[in-house]
Amino acid sequence: MGLIEGVKLKVLKPIPDDRGWLMEILRCDDELYERFGQVYLTVCYKDVVKAWHYHKIQTDYLAVVKGMAQVALYDMRKDSSTKGEVNEFFIGELNPILIKIPPMVAHGFKAIGENAYMINVPTEPYNRENPDEYRLPWNAPHIPYNWEVRFR
Amino acid sequence: MGLIEGVKLKVLKPIPDDRGWLMEILRCDDELYERFGQVYLTVCYKDVVKAWHYHKIQTDYLAVVKGMAQVALYDMRKDSSTKGEVNEFFIGELNPILIKIPPMVAHGFKAIGENAYMINVPTEPYNRENPDEYRLPWNAPHIPYNWEVRFR
Repeated sequence: MGLIEGVKLKVLKPIPDDRGWLMEILRCDDELYERFGQVYLTVCYKDVVKAWHYHKIQTDYLAVVKGMAQVALYDMRKDSSTKGEVNEFFIGELNPILIKIPPMVAHGFKAIGENAYMINVPTEPYNRENPDEYRLPWNAPHIPYNWEVRFR
Repeated sequence: MGLIEGVKLKVLKPIPDDRGWLMEILRCDDELYERFGQVYLTVCYKDVVKAWHYHKIQTDYLAVVKGMAQVALYDMRKDSSTKGEVNEFFIGELNPILIKIPPMVAHGFKAIGENAYMINVPTEPYNRENPDEYRLPWNAPHIPYNWEVRFR
């Protein structure tokens, strides 16, 4: 199964030296960039799931700068060629990738192994009076995804 | 001594809950925001000094998302009301502050106590062919600042 329609990935490239490392996350001249709403940090404690979230207007750009996260996406759009499909990613220090998530694609993440530090650079600033933030239960039965570790 | 001319601070506000925490860094409707060039991560190993850097065009917006950093600024502008002045900050988890640094204000930082994870949201994307990046030695004698720990 391929990427959900409108989801885009940017492989990030840490540049290490004797002092530490540097890693570009999102640039205004990146092909997948649209506009800047804000940048914020979200930290998730080990084994916690933050899910499901979706937006009607906002596009998210997620990257993990410390730790690892399990990220899942679910396409809620009735008119999408990938309606009902799920994508799963394991991103972070071991696999530095920026994920662009369009509106109406539900998303969630779980910190795995240790706490995960995630940067989001959405297209809109958070509106306290009228937030473009919608939630479904993390274990919503109509979403074909299970956040538990699958021993195998 | 007050702030160097054009330097601005935004006190950041971590919002903790049972799952982790969230912290807005820079919004497009913040008073100190100008424009989005890119967002990148720079990690500095404990006790390493990354200094001095300055830009001719770019304004930087620095915030530490993990660990603590000692940040120093030096005003190189001949026509500035604070010419030759130095500012020092200790920012990070214990003191979450975003620092706006105008062009021609030299800046550097040192990770203290542990590795420091810093986010920069400059007004320009990094130009590989013609970088707006200038350097002075970390211990340049004409800058009245000493990066060593001052036992006291």
